[in-house]
Amino acid sequence: MMKTQSGTDRSTIISIDALGGERGLSAVVGGMLKSAHKNSDIRFIVHGPAPELSRLVNKHPTLRERTEIRHVEKTVSMDEKPSHVMRHGKGTSMWNALESVEKGEASVAVSCGNTGALMALSMLRLRMAPGVIRPAIAVLWPSRNPAGHNVVLDVGADIRADARDLLNYAIMGASYARNGLALKRPRVGLLNVGTEEHKGRAELKEAAQLIEQAAPAGDFEYVGFVEGSDISGRRADVIVTDGFSGNIALKTAEGTASLIRDLLNEAFRHTIFSRIGALFALTSLRRLSKRIDPRRVNGGVFLGLNGTVVKSHGSADATGISAAIKLAFRLEQNGFSEKLAARVASGAPRVHTGDNDKEQEAS
Amino acid sequence: MMKTQSGTDRSTIISIDALGGERGLSAVVGGMLKSAHKNSDIRFIVHGPAPELSRLVNKHPTLRERTEIRHVEKTVSMDEKPSHVMRHGKGTSMWNALESVEKGEASVAVSCGNTGALMALSMLRLRMAPGVIRPAIAVLWPSRNPAGHNVVLDVGADIRADARDLLNYAIMGASYARNGLALKRPRVGLLNVGTEEHKGRAELKEAAQLIEQAAPAGDFEYVGFVEGSDISGRRADVIVTDGFSGNIALKTAEGTASLIRDLLNEAFRHTIFSRIGALFALTSLRRLSKRIDPRRVNGGVFLGLNGTVVKSHGSADATGISAAIKLAFRLEQNGFSEKLAARVASGAPRVHTGDNDKEQEAS
Repeated sequence: MMKTQSGTDRSTIISIDALGGERGLSAVVGGMLKSAHKNSDIRFIVHGPAPELSRLVNKHPTLRERTEIRHVEKTVSMDEKPSHVMRHGKGTSMWNALESVEKGEASVAVSCGNTGALMALSMLRLRMAPGVIRPAIAVLWPSRNPAGHNVVLDVGADIRADARDLLNYAIMGASYARNGLALKRPRVGLLNVGTEEHKGRAELKEAAQLIEQAAPAGDFEYVGFVEGSDISGRRADVIVTDGFSGNIALKTAEGTASLIRDLLNEAFRHTIFSRIGALFALTSLRRLSKRIDPRRVNGGVFLGLNGTVVKSHGSADATGISAAIKLAFRLEQNGFSEKLAARVASGAPRVHTGDNDKEQEAS
Repeated sequence: MMKTQSGTDRSTIISIDALGGERGLSAVVGGMLKSAHKNSDIRFIVHGPAPELSRLVNKHPTLRERTEIRHVEKTVSMDEKPSHVMRHGKGTSMWNALESVEKGEASVAVSCGNTGALMALSMLRLRMAPGVIRPAIAVLWPSRNPAGHNVVLDVGADIRADARDLLNYAIMGASYARNGLALKRPRVGLLNVGTEEHKGRAELKEAAQLIEQAAPAGDFEYVGFVEGSDISGRRADVIVTDGFSGNIALKTAEGTASLIRDLLNEAFRHTIFSRIGALFALTSLRRLSKRIDPRRVNGGVFLGLNGTVVKSHGSADATGISAAIKLAFRLEQNGFSEKLAARVASGAPRVHTGDNDKEQEAS
């Protein structure tokens, strides 16, 4: 059980950036309320405009007694450049939410804000864990595996990744799968345009060798190159890729699922018979809908920092934000951040020191 | 109406590579039969083992009288490297199928074989159209647009693409959308990890400028950067990307659709009520299923060659192969290959000459 710096022993304090989401404060507080109802071990520090937050929070005694409101009005907008936010982000709700984690007041931060800005400020405030050269954003992806999800990273922390970054992602992704999906020895695949060894870019072939070598020490299995269709498949539990391809894949899948969902609703509304059919199949369809609802697996986790940050979807509603809070809570209760740092650090000396490998190994 | 070098005036002769598909000759002949039944203007030259092909073809008078069988047994395997096929591919069914187009015996080729090998041999036998520096594979992608599909390219001809290649893809993709989707002035988007101008790799920013400049002459509208979710969306009719990202996106979408389809079937089998529901909704569900069935839009079109080549999915069944044949026929009837070449050639002098731009413009 994680220790926290305040209040009851068993509770985890989550720092919430209340600004920056597309659906405003009521969605954020709605998500907090859902989580507070389900889990009595969660407490909040929420950063945003105090008058409105108080009004929303104080309606619900469950929430009021477990929430500390920190007033801030300055926000990071959705289209602000990360470089600009690095210079001028101080005093925003995002900055303050991360600072609560940095100071140890809270153990994990959740934000719906601008991804690039959140990553930039997270690196600035929390700094990278020892051995990490590039952090990554990992998501849980609905899949055919028994766990119901695969881990996919990087989905957008950085559009570039060289072979050593990809190795780093493999180690961090495996650690996430062990903690987030309870898999003892996760199978790691490297995303490519084909499974044959000769396919793809040069850095992928190099990364494949590095990852294969690191597998025994990293306590994972390397299954080789995988394709886009394997992201939701059974061949691997962890899919490693650069942030450009990962982001394209994630948004393409979201678009596909959303199109099919709409066509399905349309199909059921089409005739009187299909309407009757939908009524009969209601429970089963609801179960399916829940299974593929992206809101239920909402939350990209920033891996490789000194502290856990969960990025919720910008358009998340209360259900989505509650899912992000749940994920943050679960990871923190598992002591994930410390375990990950240990993994990366133990894998680090041989593989993360660039040109000094030989000297370091000799020393 | 296209002229062809044989038989009746109105007919289009399609050259079929019968080997290399995962489902064998019966799927190929099954697809030919479906197309022959639906369309009396199609004739075939089919390349493969004569004894077995004769047996399959001769069962059906409709097919027999419109099919010429060319015996060949050598095949290109699914995992053969393109470089190896370039040297040793002569005398394979794939080679011979392309040669029929090269010689003018047929006007378009269809193959289910190894994509990389098919592209390599296509470039060798048919050569690139004037002005093209890198051919691309384009697919029709189910979308929310009124046409029902968007054009996406490149989905795997080449894993690399620089800014000028992407411009080239934009011109070819717009031409395909005009002919394949009957859109007068297609809207072209460039795939990126965000729609803001500062996002993404350097070559994307450069490509964005080139494509914007080429839009008036190329008779298309440039809508800027688009994201993965826009591939199936309404913002653009043509989505331009490199072959690595395009291939990842295509296979990710296929995997997502296939997972949802299986979960949907499972949901309907789950209880007696859901089974009854499925019966009532049967017609509507079939319509939906047809709409998102990847077999119905089977066929990647190779753009930028002197002649049209359609790559059918390796795992295509008769329905899938028939869809690829239909696509090949339709494009050929439209004189697409000539129109595309004219477009690229007219866009070419300024944009495809590499370092000699200024000299060429001056001359």
